[in-house]
Amino acid sequence: MSMSGGRGGTERLVVIGGDAAGMSAASRARRTRKPDELEIVAFERGGFTSYSACGIPYWVGGAVAERDRLIARTPEEHRARGIDLRLRTEVTGIDVAGQRVRARDLDSGAESWTSYDKLVIATGARPIRPDMPGADAPGVHGVQTLGDGQALLDTLTRTRGRRAVVVGAGYIGVEMAEALIDRGFEVTVVNRGEEPMATLDPDMGRLVHRAMEGLGITMVNGSEVTGLLTGADGRVRAVATRDAEHPADVVVMGIGVRPETALARSAGLPLGAHGGLLTDLAMRVRGHANIWAGGDCVEVLNLVSGQHQYVPLGTHANKHGQVIGTNAGGGYATFPGVVGTAVSKVCDLEIARTGLREKDARRAGLQYESVTVESTSRAGYYPGASPMTVKMLAERRTGRLLGVQIVGREGAGKRVDVAAVALTARMTVEQMTSLDLGYAPPFSPVWDPVLAAARKATAKVRTGA
Amino acid sequence: MSMSGGRGGTERLVVIGGDAAGMSAASRARRTRKPDELEIVAFERGGFTSYSACGIPYWVGGAVAERDRLIARTPEEHRARGIDLRLRTEVTGIDVAGQRVRARDLDSGAESWTSYDKLVIATGARPIRPDMPGADAPGVHGVQTLGDGQALLDTLTRTRGRRAVVVGAGYIGVEMAEALIDRGFEVTVVNRGEEPMATLDPDMGRLVHRAMEGLGITMVNGSEVTGLLTGADGRVRAVATRDAEHPADVVVMGIGVRPETALARSAGLPLGAHGGLLTDLAMRVRGHANIWAGGDCVEVLNLVSGQHQYVPLGTHANKHGQVIGTNAGGGYATFPGVVGTAVSKVCDLEIARTGLREKDARRAGLQYESVTVESTSRAGYYPGASPMTVKMLAERRTGRLLGVQIVGREGAGKRVDVAAVALTARMTVEQMTSLDLGYAPPFSPVWDPVLAAARKATAKVRTGA
Repeated sequence: MSMSGGRGGTERLVVIGGDAAGMSAASRARRTRKPDELEIVAFERGGFTSYSACGIPYWVGGAVAERDRLIARTPEEHRARGIDLRLRTEVTGIDVAGQRVRARDLDSGAESWTSYDKLVIATGARPIRPDMPGADAPGVHGVQTLGDGQALLDTLTRTRGRRAVVVGAGYIGVEMAEALIDRGFEVTVVNRGEEPMATLDPDMGRLVHRAMEGLGITMVNGSEVTGLLTGADGRVRAVATRDAEHPADVVVMGIGVRPETALARSAGLPLGAHGGLLTDLAMRVRGHANIWAGGDCVEVLNLVSGQHQYVPLGTHANKHGQVIGTNAGGGYATFPGVVGTAVSKVCDLEIARTGLREKDARRAGLQYESVTVESTSRAGYYPGASPMTVKMLAERRTGRLLGVQIVGREGAGKRVDVAAVALTARMTVEQMTSLDLGYAPPFSPVWDPVLAAARKATAKVRTGA
Repeated sequence: MSMSGGRGGTERLVVIGGDAAGMSAASRARRTRKPDELEIVAFERGGFTSYSACGIPYWVGGAVAERDRLIARTPEEHRARGIDLRLRTEVTGIDVAGQRVRARDLDSGAESWTSYDKLVIATGARPIRPDMPGADAPGVHGVQTLGDGQALLDTLTRTRGRRAVVVGAGYIGVEMAEALIDRGFEVTVVNRGEEPMATLDPDMGRLVHRAMEGLGITMVNGSEVTGLLTGADGRVRAVATRDAEHPADVVVMGIGVRPETALARSAGLPLGAHGGLLTDLAMRVRGHANIWAGGDCVEVLNLVSGQHQYVPLGTHANKHGQVIGTNAGGGYATFPGVVGTAVSKVCDLEIARTGLREKDARRAGLQYESVTVESTSRAGYYPGASPMTVKMLAERRTGRLLGVQIVGREGAGKRVDVAAVALTARMTVEQMTSLDLGYAPPFSPVWDPVLAAARKATAKVRTGA
């Protein structure tokens, strides 16, 4: 094992993880500090950098024609900007006291230590793969990395059968259901929860359930997978639950991810209840002035509940990277937290949420009023006006907005942004009723659906006492 | 002249004007107070109630098939809810000291006084019609009322020629340009300003200019109309400017509206610099505890500039009506003001603004930094991603958001709502950079265009010092 190091007058920033958070941090730090002031070394165990994992379902489904369209910045581009990027190199240990990391070249197997003055941990997430028979059988796929996407595409192309089962009905599950429909498969979604999209309350999830069935997707809710059955050729042939077998020529596992923090745990760094790294508002790992962490390996503060949660999303990872890069470069920036916004779609159904669900509110000790309104994306008389359902939670008595969920067609999803900003500003639903939102018949009814919900919530808070 | 009155134990609420603000107020008051507690009399000089004037261009253009689709609530529906609605009855005087209004039956010519305990003035707006030769010639149309729309439609149907000239390039002008294209006309827009959409800064208006030309519309900017020329048959045949004559088989005047406040002025009620009624936050006419005013006849406070402005928009009128009806019914509600949000479209071009333009900021005594970014409606690799330009103004040194303007295609316009909420919450552009907006590739780039602008503005404020 060799030791690289020797700093001279130059500081060294080491980045672990070459995707959104890590490479954003590296790029941002590079823009503020020149190579003779700050050396930047980035380790990535895979072969790609800075790609949109969120785009994989659309590449698999064919909406995005080529894998490389998902790559925001190639290794060569990073290197041209003065970042010493080492691909297929896995960091296997962090020596916090010694300010160094140990890394293994995955091709040669060689290991070496690299010292750092400043460290960024952006190790991302790993998919949850249940420990059950058949989980590794050919024909069973995850969609976490570009490599996973390519393997799935290869299977879809080679498989003669047309029956696909998606395990899990969260964002990845519904997006993969759409992708597989687009590829001409018959799709069954097997879901442990009562309704799809557990990120919504069940009453809103039921709308997604009905809409997905309307799209020809077979929904199997309240059903836990007990095993993946294989045929004589060793390939997956069915997904087994307690009650049934669902024949499958291909299986996509979409049951979520966990923070990839084994390295951080071994190094004694602080982890939260969800297994993610804990940071301060400047994204510094708690108790460590020269170590930052961001992206899918950290927990974030939910500004509405006041509690930490795990929200692996590319948009947060990019923001973390900017904040980390600014601070590691000697500037100042913070990431105050999230309000829990997410949007997704399955075919033409748009699904959005922000803030707290009913159970989140209860868990946070908040009492609330809940209202649901039916509205439309445009003035009712304007062509293309499509229905949407908006659910809104407001704190009892104070009327503070707590959360919004929207299920509808075109024009529904991004309306959640209004509520996301209102949550950040801690507005009451009554304050929201006078928000000056854009109105013209092709864009909105005269009362925007979110405002219509705010009006109803205001009335309920008033009479709720 | 007769005198109706005699109140007994019942209060009487008189409403002048039967459209959005007036009938919203009447309906809201009716929901909180029963007919034996509060008698409600509403006067409307036209023959319709509660219709969407904003929808007229889409009816004229054919996107909305029937006039009656624009009517939210008919006279009969209002009467069935216990509102004494008197159509084709024009209020000709307000006796504030005597608490009564004089009204004329437009069919019989009979006049009578009606006493009130509470009065709502919702007289709306009147279109600006320049005092020039030919302004009343056949073939010259406004689009303020349903009657105007019907007259224009009749002309479009009867006219054999296919040349239309729109005078004015504000919201009505661009929407009518689209309507006339949809009806198969060759459209010329004659505009006094340097660029269309004077509600935008000229650099953003220029984008609208180019896009309208791309749609086949002939744009004549910086050109004041000097007269409307008529043929031997008395019909309009051309629009004359200082430099040119623009042949026209039909002319649509879309040069804006003014508050209809002649009645209020005669009654000695307080008017502002723009000719609109001045109210307090409960929408009571200043100095008058039992008179409210709302909709297109009032001025409103701009929360960003701190100055009053005139913003005739149906969405405000509806909000005013709710606030007035709540208060007139004995409850409590306020309308805090506007931030100046507006969206419009011409064919597939979407145009939006909120807050202050550069000249508004200067007029308000604010120093600012301005940035412009190019972005897309969806992730760049996702099908249908369309370009948009976002301009953002931030206050110098404090970084407070002052305004946003957006010009783009599908998915551009309603993004302005995020900025509208941020303006209401008096956020800085730096605070905006961490807003938790909905992200998924079909909905947004990983940095939403508004956040991308906020990042650039933050950097400029920092370095601007």
